Amino acid sequence: MISDFNEILSESAKGMKKSAIRELLKLTQVPGIISFAGGLPAPESFPVEDLKKIIIEVLEEQASSALQYGATEGDQGLREVITKAYIKDGLDISIENVVITTASQQGLDLIAKIFINRGDKVLVGLPSYLGGLGAFNNYGANMIGIPFDEHGMRSDKVEEILADLKSKGEKPKFIYVIPDFQNPAGITMPNFRRKEIIDLAKKYDVLIIEDSPYRELRFEGEHQERMYAIDNTGQVVILGTFSKIFVPGFRIGWLIAHKDITDKIIVSKQSTDLCTSPFVQKLAVKYVRDGYFDKNLKNTIKLYREKRHIMLKGFEEYMPEGVTWTRPEGGLFLFLTVPEHIDSGKLFDKAIEKKVAFVKGSVFHCDGSGKNTMRINFSYASKEDIKEGVKRLAQVIKEALNE
Amino acid sequence: MISDFNEILSESAKGMKKSAIRELLKLTQVPGIISFAGGLPAPESFPVEDLKKIIIEVLEEQASSALQYGATEGDQGLREVITKAYIKDGLDISIENVVITTASQQGLDLIAKIFINRGDKVLVGLPSYLGGLGAFNNYGANMIGIPFDEHGMRSDKVEEILADLKSKGEKPKFIYVIPDFQNPAGITMPNFRRKEIIDLAKKYDVLIIEDSPYRELRFEGEHQERMYAIDNTGQVVILGTFSKIFVPGFRIGWLIAHKDITDKIIVSKQSTDLCTSPFVQKLAVKYVRDGYFDKNLKNTIKLYREKRHIMLKGFEEYMPEGVTWTRPEGGLFLFLTVPEHIDSGKLFDKAIEKKVAFVKGSVFHCDGSGKNTMRINFSYASKEDIKEGVKRLAQVIKEALNE
Repeated sequence: MISDFNEILSESAKGMKKSAIRELLKLTQVPGIISFAGGLPAPESFPVEDLKKIIIEVLEEQASSALQYGATEGDQGLREVITKAYIKDGLDISIENVVITTASQQGLDLIAKIFINRGDKVLVGLPSYLGGLGAFNNYGANMIGIPFDEHGMRSDKVEEILADLKSKGEKPKFIYVIPDFQNPAGITMPNFRRKEIIDLAKKYDVLIIEDSPYRELRFEGEHQERMYAIDNTGQVVILGTFSKIFVPGFRIGWLIAHKDITDKIIVSKQSTDLCTSPFVQKLAVKYVRDGYFDKNLKNTIKLYREKRHIMLKGFEEYMPEGVTWTRPEGGLFLFLTVPEHIDSGKLFDKAIEKKVAFVKGSVFHCDGSGKNTMRINFSYASKEDIKEGVKRLAQVIKEALNE
Repeated sequence: MISDFNEILSESAKGMKKSAIRELLKLTQVPGIISFAGGLPAPESFPVEDLKKIIIEVLEEQASSALQYGATEGDQGLREVITKAYIKDGLDISIENVVITTASQQGLDLIAKIFINRGDKVLVGLPSYLGGLGAFNNYGANMIGIPFDEHGMRSDKVEEILADLKSKGEKPKFIYVIPDFQNPAGITMPNFRRKEIIDLAKKYDVLIIEDSPYRELRFEGEHQERMYAIDNTGQVVILGTFSKIFVPGFRIGWLIAHKDITDKIIVSKQSTDLCTSPFVQKLAVKYVRDGYFDKNLKNTIKLYREKRHIMLKGFEEYMPEGVTWTRPEGGLFLFLTVPEHIDSGKLFDKAIEKKVAFVKGSVFHCDGSGKNTMRINFSYASKEDIKEGVKRLAQVIKEALNE
């Protein structure tokens, strides 16, 4: 081995943190632990029998293209299916605005790759998705956190930052938002807030990244408008994925953007992984076209609605006073806040002893704040485990409050 | 859309070239064209019937893990299978030295990400694999080309460069080599040359990247030692893939390296695509463990040996004097050299008119040289098409020589 390994690493590698969440998730795999930690879909939502049928059909009808290398921009059929679905959702796009990615984490990586030089500023939520923060961090982004209110990212704070940067002749590379059932906060931005953020992006000439992995999982209430559709000039980039609404194990996502952006993304993706698996893309096309997608999505929504209900009922019944939580209208997560003097990182250790797990909220805050918050997932655990896990968690918090 | 799109791009995106080969490959998809251009495996080598069986078994036995998110470092079973195979090939490694990647292109991307700052030097072959050059270019590498002789990368030239850099207090981040059936040259480094390069790497304290997608496809002659095994201290990083010896459409590769390196690669991969599809990884494990891999590899080797034979025979029969070519002992490519005054880029247009395609050699040269060379693939076209394509290509070259 060479003598100066640590010195020859790139600035990027030097700045990489061993993911806190990755280490935590290992702990949560200990048998007997009820995990509200990961962001995993329910295994009982996986359409195993449908897949058996589809896979055999794909192998009988199109094995020589499904098993071969494919186009970097993605399977033509899959791009068509996605284009259609998003046009229905109000977007003014055509197929050239759609690139298939190796799940939406790759979308985040490629966006960072084509826009971020070391030290560039980006605006992110306080809190925000850890995988987004990680991708931007790998390219040396300087993240500026925007606090939340009950409607999500605060537009007054966005304007404050943008105006301040402008006064110095600067602007951020983009504003990163997760408008539907935000991870980790479980908050959905109402239309008025979306419009405020779009207006600011127009005024200050800044791109918006609309990360949207959960939108289809709405349990109640009305769909708010897509931020891309509110603008419809291509100033917004959408990241989508099948991970939460089909299966995560296929690693299929997509990026929808102005053609100037998709052109760069395609060139960048080519050197990153050449193409996303044509095999799983062809399965996905058949899955959507033959009606399985709509049928199964309904069942998944029903399942997650029930699980969320059980969790919220448990919280109401068992949580001590002083603890608050969000009530998501969809998605996979809710966010819990304990009194300020309690550190959820310390609660975690006690929770593991009691065999229940969550993720401490500070990891979602680029400034390290949020120490009295925690992200709670309700999609993965079984209904029985949710009931029991909530009791255990409430007990841990009560004990901490009594100390 | 924002007003200053081209200005806000990262340095990386500004330096990205629309891949010449990507544009060329589109041309080669015109019906009737016999393509020696891409590096595609033969579709007739895909084990479609075996796969049907394996897939149903995986879905029946382990759907809930195969369709779920997986570990960033890869499926435990697949890492075990690969560790075993490489120990057999002389490597002193354990499972912690193995990371599964989304095919070996991702390995190249991650290696570049953890080592290259803009302007850093790397040594590459003249010629070298285009996807490697592209990945390094995306991170702003300054590539120094090392000329070839009949044994591959010239060690005297490697030493010249390393000594020169050392005199300036510099060294390259790594030396990128493809020792077996090199893409595009079709040359295999003999053991003595491998040892010379390793000795230089030790002397000058430099890492080696041993890109090895074709090694298993040997038609004749003896296996040369793995460069990793010659060193066995972890100063060499291996990139491997199933793309050429199973199916490319699953996008499964691996990286074998010192644990200090795999640790960084795993953290970096997490923000790049979280994990490689657990579904296709579990298919691969079963494919190897149940004996399909060994059986089918034998057939693929036999098929490619025949195709290469037909191509070489055709060249001998039809190529005009002054044209030379390599005689690969394995792999997918051979390299053809025409007299110096002929530009293979111009030949390409004429070849397309005659409905035969190749890739001009200059794209594999980081310094733009090699204008009178071309890469010829013999794995993809059918045997009949190889016969006919060689005739057409010889005709195009003859006409250019007569002009």
